[in-house]
Order: sequence, then structure tokens, then C-alpha cells
Amino acid sequence: MDDQVTLVQKTVVVTPEGSEETRETVAIEVPYKVALNDREIGASMVLETGLEEFGAGFLFGQGYITAPGQVREVLVCPEGRISVHADVDEEDEPREVIITSGCGGTGKISREMLEGAFEPLAEYSMGFAEIRRFIRAALHASPLGNQTHCVHGCAFWTGGDMVAHYEDVGRHNAVDKVIGAILLGKFSPAGAIYTTGRLTSDMVLKCARIGIPIVLSRTAPSSLGLAIARRAGVTLAAYARPHRLNIFHAPERIISPEPV
Amino acid sequence: MDDQVTLVQKTVVVTPEGSEETRETVAIEVPYKVALNDREIGASMVLETGLEEFGAGFLFGQGYITAPGQVREVLVCPEGRISVHADVDEEDEPREVIITSGCGGTGKISREMLEGAFEPLAEYSMGFAEIRRFIRAALHASPLGNQTHCVHGCAFWTGGDMVAHYEDVGRHNAVDKVIGAILLGKFSPAGAIYTTGRLTSDMVLKCARIGIPIVLSRTAPSSLGLAIARRAGVTLAAYARPHRLNIFHAPERIISPEPV
Repeated sequence: MDDQVTLVQKTVVVTPEGSEETRETVAIEVPYKVALNDREIGASMVLETGLEEFGAGFLFGQGYITAPGQVREVLVCPEGRISVHADVDEEDEPREVIITSGCGGTGKISREMLEGAFEPLAEYSMGFAEIRRFIRAALHASPLGNQTHCVHGCAFWTGGDMVAHYEDVGRHNAVDKVIGAILLGKFSPAGAIYTTGRLTSDMVLKCARIGIPIVLSRTAPSSLGLAIARRAGVTLAAYARPHRLNIFHAPERIISPEPV
Repeated sequence: MDDQVTLVQKTVVVTPEGSEETRETVAIEVPYKVALNDREIGASMVLETGLEEFGAGFLFGQGYITAPGQVREVLVCPEGRISVHADVDEEDEPREVIITSGCGGTGKISREMLEGAFEPLAEYSMGFAEIRRFIRAALHASPLGNQTHCVHGCAFWTGGDMVAHYEDVGRHNAVDKVIGAILLGKFSPAGAIYTTGRLTSDMVLKCARIGIPIVLSRTAPSSLGLAIARRAGVTLAAYARPHRLNIFHAPERIISPEPV
């Protein structure tokens, strides 16, 4: 696979003073198909990084894969196909009404997932100082966001370290890559996930389903994202900055500093 | 339909100095099904505004409706269903491989749409001063973006005026509402569209398919968004601000100021 994920374009900047040529860095968006046990399930535009993780996470997001340990092998074909082989019960594949998400990335969640019960989340809590380290680390993990303004980042923190950082042209895809890493056994869901994207329903839903107890966003949740966090018991914090966190639900997992 | 599209939540802000309760405004995200001639086509999470336009635009985005004049009637049922009645040829419905978009909103575009030829765009050009007025008008059209940080805006300018401004929890949905307004005959595509969202492939594709000649974004295009603009001949300008525009393709439709 080619490592190049950006290209440089000539552009013309116009201001009231006149116009001049400049150059901009653009993120490369590529279509990939995802297959499960040789059956094509869907396709997505992606940034060509973390594609094995993406394949697994994509299939989790759509309800085909449901837990770590099911994935046996992921093969990435650079011509645009990710083949996931997993021990899943064909009977378990998503049924019923499928909801395409408003700003939907991988695009589909079933009504069953949206309204069903949640398994208990992994046990985890963090000090505020540790969260500050995490947010700083995520912000400094890659220059791609600032270069292209066209990718979202998603990171995972556990055991005192940032153990993953992925980017993608879609905020859902970036989260899917982190969840895929959990499915591939790279780390456990007992930790905190940070996304640069908004926490709409489907974003919170997939984090809750895999069992992540702390969900942080650089920006805001929607009403339904918050409702799902409440139902699942997820700690949801928004507008996350190195010096400031706005906790919308379950603050008890975040050990705040002593008031001055 | 209820006009309320936000709600206020109590949250806890944590800083190094301690924590305190505050309140945040949250955008209300609601699932809606979309039916075409009584057949359910899909569903999406939406902000409950401009739902008739959304229904038409959603079906255009997925390739079921292809041109203004096809839509006969749109009925919105506040229980979560938008019923579009349109004169479309059942034979024309999308076939072949469906691509779910990376940050995909209405979620599906066919390979045929992605790789097919484009109809000629509407003729239109604008002075830079006029574009500045448009961007300013779009930025001031609604406080919802700044209040919730969870909605995207999309506006349309033609004949010297901003003729539409819609918002949604999804950047695609907001664009779909503007395109829906064109499909419902509210205005012609001969003008400029402004979105606060990134111009990934599917975003540019739907603007090009309906024939909009000038596409402006507050933020960046992806490689494939730019490639589609080139193929279709769309003027694509990014990082649009009242005082600055960065034109990635076809600057000839934008009449720039005389250099000082």
C-alpha cells in the first residue's frame, strides 16, 4: 500500500487586495470495499491508513461483528478491498429497519442497536491531570488535521499511555479504526476514547457497544448522543481541551482536581 | 411539528482550578424515515427543520429523484416519516455497487454516479464583493451553530440574494435540504452554494449533479471532492471567509477584484 495520504494542489487565493497563486495540502480520499467471509458488505471512502482496523471496525459499526476475538484475519488489497474473516454466526447479522446516520460515516445502524440494552462497560477511571495529558498527546499526534483541514482524528488512552491514534476523512471511520484495533486485540476497551468529531447518536453508540467507559470529544454531543451515553452509563465529556473539560454525563469516572 | 430543535443540559466544567456546574445547548437529533411513492427508501438522523426539502434532497442524493419537476407532493408526519410522491421511473432506481461515504450523511452513492458523465452546469458568475456578502449573510443566518457546535449550515445565493439557509446535525443533510429546495422549485441551481462542511466526494457530487456551478466551503475539499469538481467543471472554493477565498478549481466564474 502506498503511504501517501495527501497531495499538494495549486490554488488561487482571492482577497480584497487581489489574487495570488498558492499551494494547499489535500487529503486523499479513496473508496474501499469491505467483505466479511468473502461476502461484500459495503464500501466507504477512507484515508488509506489503519485499513485492517477499519475493516474490523466498519463491520462492528454495522452489527456484523459484535466482540473482540471473532476476527481471524484481515487482508487488505490495495486495489480497494478489505477482506475480513471472522467467526460470526450468519444468523446474527443485522435485521430490521436500518437507520442511516445524519452525518453518518459508515452509515447504518439498526433500530435494534439504537434501542436495545447495553452490556456493562469496562471499569476505568482517570484523574483530570491524566486526561489533560491524553488530550495534549492526541492534539500533537499528527500534523495531518492542520495541514488538510479534511481529516478527523481519534485516539485511545489506557494504562497511562496513548495506545492508538488514527485519522480519516470521516469522523466515523476514525472511530471505527480505534474500535477495530480493540477487535484485533491490540488493547482492551477499558480506557478513554478521544475524537475530534461530534458525538451524534451513532458515534456514542459504537463506543458504548464495545464497552468504552469514557468518551471525549473536541466538540459537542447531540441530544441523542447524550441520551445513549445516559442509557449505557458512558462518561461523556465534550469541548475537551488540555485545560478544560465539559462533562455531560457520569462525571464520577473523572477524578477532578481539588478546588482551590 | 414542534419547532424546538435544541434543549438545555446541565453539565460540569472541570479546569485545573476545580469544577463547577454550567448549562449547554444541545441540538436535538431525531430519526426520520423517507419514503418514495409509499415505499420506504431509508432513514436518517436529522435536525427537525426543512423536512420537506430534506425528503426530496435525500432521495436525490441516493439517485431516486434526478431532476426538479419530478416531485409532486411531500408529506411530513411528525412521528418520523417523510413521504415523497414523485414522477420517477421505477426502472431508473440506483443499481450496482453502492458506496457508503466516509463521512457520509445520507450515506450512499452509486459507482455509476461517481464515475458517470455530468450534464452541463447552469451558467452563473459572481463578483468577489458579492461572494463576500453571501458569506457574511450565511455566517449571520442563525445562532444555532455557535450555540450547539453540533450543526452544519448550508446556504444558497442567486440573483443578488441569499435565498435559502438550512441547518442539520449532518453536513450532508444540510446540503440535501438546499438541493431539496431546488427540486421543489423554490429557486434554480444557477447560483452559489455555501456549506460549513468539508467537500468530500459525495458533497461535491450532489451539487454537480443538480447543476450548481459555484460551490463554497468554510473548510477544505478532499482529493476526490476536487477531482469531481474538475470533471464536472464546478468552481470549487474553500476556506471561504468574508475577506478571503481559496479557489481550487475554475476561478473564471469568480470575478476577482482589480489588484492594488
